[in-house]
Amino acid sequence: MIVTILVAESSTSSKVLTLENLNPRVKSVEYAVRGEIAILADTLKNKLAQGAQLPFKEITNINIGNPQQLKQKPITFFRQVASLVENPELLSDENREKVEALYPKDTIERAKKLVASAGGSVGSYSHSMGIPYIREQVAKFIERRDGFSSDPDSIFLTAGASPAVQLVLQCMIDKPEVGVLIPIPQYPLYTASLALFNGQPVPYYLDEENAWGMNIADLKKSVDEARRNGTDVRALVIINPGNPTGQCLTEENMRDVIDFCQRERLVLCADEVYQTNIYVPEERPFHSFKKVLKSMGSSYENVELFSFHSISKGMIGECGRRGGYVECTGIDPKVIDQMYKISSISLCPNVQGQVMMELMVNPPQPGEPSYELYKNEMDDIYTSLIRRSTKLASAFNGLEGVTCNKAEGAMYLFPQIRLPAKAIEAAKAAGKQPDAFYSLEMLKETGVCVVPGSGFGQQEGTWHFRATFLPPEHTFDEFINLLENFHKKFMSTYRD
Amino acid sequence: MIVTILVAESSTSSKVLTLENLNPRVKSVEYAVRGEIAILADTLKNKLAQGAQLPFKEITNINIGNPQQLKQKPITFFRQVASLVENPELLSDENREKVEALYPKDTIERAKKLVASAGGSVGSYSHSMGIPYIREQVAKFIERRDGFSSDPDSIFLTAGASPAVQLVLQCMIDKPEVGVLIPIPQYPLYTASLALFNGQPVPYYLDEENAWGMNIADLKKSVDEARRNGTDVRALVIINPGNPTGQCLTEENMRDVIDFCQRERLVLCADEVYQTNIYVPEERPFHSFKKVLKSMGSSYENVELFSFHSISKGMIGECGRRGGYVECTGIDPKVIDQMYKISSISLCPNVQGQVMMELMVNPPQPGEPSYELYKNEMDDIYTSLIRRSTKLASAFNGLEGVTCNKAEGAMYLFPQIRLPAKAIEAAKAAGKQPDAFYSLEMLKETGVCVVPGSGFGQQEGTWHFRATFLPPEHTFDEFINLLENFHKKFMSTYRD
Repeated sequence: MIVTILVAESSTSSKVLTLENLNPRVKSVEYAVRGEIAILADTLKNKLAQGAQLPFKEITNINIGNPQQLKQKPITFFRQVASLVENPELLSDENREKVEALYPKDTIERAKKLVASAGGSVGSYSHSMGIPYIREQVAKFIERRDGFSSDPDSIFLTAGASPAVQLVLQCMIDKPEVGVLIPIPQYPLYTASLALFNGQPVPYYLDEENAWGMNIADLKKSVDEARRNGTDVRALVIINPGNPTGQCLTEENMRDVIDFCQRERLVLCADEVYQTNIYVPEERPFHSFKKVLKSMGSSYENVELFSFHSISKGMIGECGRRGGYVECTGIDPKVIDQMYKISSISLCPNVQGQVMMELMVNPPQPGEPSYELYKNEMDDIYTSLIRRSTKLASAFNGLEGVTCNKAEGAMYLFPQIRLPAKAIEAAKAAGKQPDAFYSLEMLKETGVCVVPGSGFGQQEGTWHFRATFLPPEHTFDEFINLLENFHKKFMSTYRD
Repeated sequence: MIVTILVAESSTSSKVLTLENLNPRVKSVEYAVRGEIAILADTLKNKLAQGAQLPFKEITNINIGNPQQLKQKPITFFRQVASLVENPELLSDENREKVEALYPKDTIERAKKLVASAGGSVGSYSHSMGIPYIREQVAKFIERRDGFSSDPDSIFLTAGASPAVQLVLQCMIDKPEVGVLIPIPQYPLYTASLALFNGQPVPYYLDEENAWGMNIADLKKSVDEARRNGTDVRALVIINPGNPTGQCLTEENMRDVIDFCQRERLVLCADEVYQTNIYVPEERPFHSFKKVLKSMGSSYENVELFSFHSISKGMIGECGRRGGYVECTGIDPKVIDQMYKISSISLCPNVQGQVMMELMVNPPQPGEPSYELYKNEMDDIYTSLIRRSTKLASAFNGLEGVTCNKAEGAMYLFPQIRLPAKAIEAAKAAGKQPDAFYSLEMLKETGVCVVPGSGFGQQEGTWHFRATFLPPEHTFDEFINLLENFHKKFMSTYRD
């Protein structure tokens, strides 16, 4: 009896909602990009702000592809229009002269057009798939890019590519046996979302020795093995250009992938958010899967493709605004209807993100007042990104035991670090993966924040980290110097 | 053999992803607010735009609480600051004079502070829970409102209240037996999200005869019955002020609810997005559940409360921007950690929504340059909403067989329509709920778009629709006149 009473008391004083009875799918999610190391970086940043003495003067966040956090200047045209659409007063005839002293004419015209497309105010809920006019503009952009038609009613504007990916995966997974092929290393959005929606990640490995290439034989092996084990493999995720690996696929390779999807009955999910971050354009230009698929003719008409894009990457880097889209090619209209229904529960993607998507797909054209500045700003960022990626890769390759493929695309390097056995033991003793141990030490010594490779997946027994090359160019010498000193010290501490 | 080959062919030519193998949770979602009638309204709007002759000149969208779609002018101060934060040029010393000719000084200062709080650009990803400075401002707002402390680290900024509600429900439901008490009628976000996350809605009825009041005996009956049937009832959703029903709870009633939650071990989810839409403030002021809970003293410390708020409602109506928050009171910190992890998968809520949240909780103060205009704009919208709600309720009450409670709060009326048996038969013949049938006819005849009560739930055998009172005041006479004529015609067509 006493026991019963005690239990009852403990039960009323404890919480209803606890870690124990939380959704196990939520608990199973791992998301390293904003994990322990990122949280420590925030803590250290606050300490520095409060005047603490640390071995470094600032935190260098090369963990996330967040260009404007690293002082990348936003593109003037985009922000001028964004500013005008917010303030109806600026578009009134009454203020015309004052406003024209601050804004080029094409920005004013564009803003008026966008406000009208939003039904007169960017403060209204839009259509749950996004403002029809903006979806039309996205479709036209895709048509210009690919040379094949695009249907605005197959395009969902979303609050970034991540919710678009989640929308697709959430619809696709109807039982725990459903599997989705994901690259290893991968952007952890995919494993996190699969964990959340109770599907199976089916890994296929990118070949580090071969510039992070993919090959069909490996894909086939992964599919066959998973299917033998009872997994209903239903889709293939490809990140092109790669995150965290930075490679660009050749058109030939893409044709093989599409053919493979048709033969194996796989929905192709093409994460193409880095499509303008292309650093060796002659050798490795970007091709969209949509274009390659359409170019393969009517015998591939039945292939199902979701293509994702974003305003967060490229030379735009408008991450905080949250804007993206998914284009559905060959998808059953009834499936699109269901996606629309699910989108409507949260009413609409934020209109400011939609507006930026329109600006991204319709930049200023030669002859327009904003063109020259726009072109210069974009070119400056682009050429600097190429220089920065080369410089950082070369610095990594200069470190003892480190090798690093060059970035053909995207915003990241993914160097491999060969750690001494003692370092691996020290990591074990600290209860950490060796690359997480290394990255934590790096942060504590240098203020440089990276993401350990174990957060993305990697071949067993290899260790990596992901680093963006986004910090301002003038800071590279200093933080590279800090990294080099740290690495030397780390290696001599743990040398076998 | 031939059959086998045919099947194989049909299987390769058919889709991998079909309605049949889609996530059954996705398929089971119902979301009437943007259902058939809303879609027809869009179609008719397009037809009108293309010059079609219809029995009305425009679509009157009183189906969604979307004030700016219905020409509500955005609050100048909010938009001025929103405009300034977008355009770094406007905040430079170089342009100071030109900018001060267009913007009051306090808007410029505020914009600078907000850009700094975003790390120098509103184009950066923020902390996944939202910008720390803005969470601090929200906490201070809550403290001023309630007189009790609030912790910024228990506040998640979100892209509107809807994703905040979904985040909480997604975490809370760990098995299909988990039940959540929801009011009937309810805002369909709740049933839709419960369907999506595979939980059980446990309905409790609001009492239409008693101004849509709730009583503890009914709640108790609902909980007991559900628990007897094996449902693990874990939470209680209250929408206060009510949507679609417009009632405001008394403090006494709220104390009883909190006491009930403690006794029954229920997490309280308080949807308080209409907290400033209060139309009989002396009789029915707004009290937050947080304040009432804290005022009940330490013996109620263990009660777990999620409180939701939004920038979409009130007199602000910045729906398209998507901004909201959830404050967690008495929630296990380990649960908050899991919510943080899930939020981080989509990186961050859009920064523009966060900025507007800061403006909402820190409006201009007496003596500041923007105060007077701000005050006048807010007062004008507020007093007009009161007049409009009264006028529309009175029009509904004047219709044969229709009764309508007045709106104590929120943005909606939820009249009951007593339909003739013939109309109910006609609806059945058309395969529709009687109120959906009535609402569709209304749309086709008048261009007025409402949401049928069956989308919100209602006592069996009663029929309602939800109508906002948000259209511009000068249009009321015309669309009320259309409604009256339609109703007369409808009733005489179907009179028994």
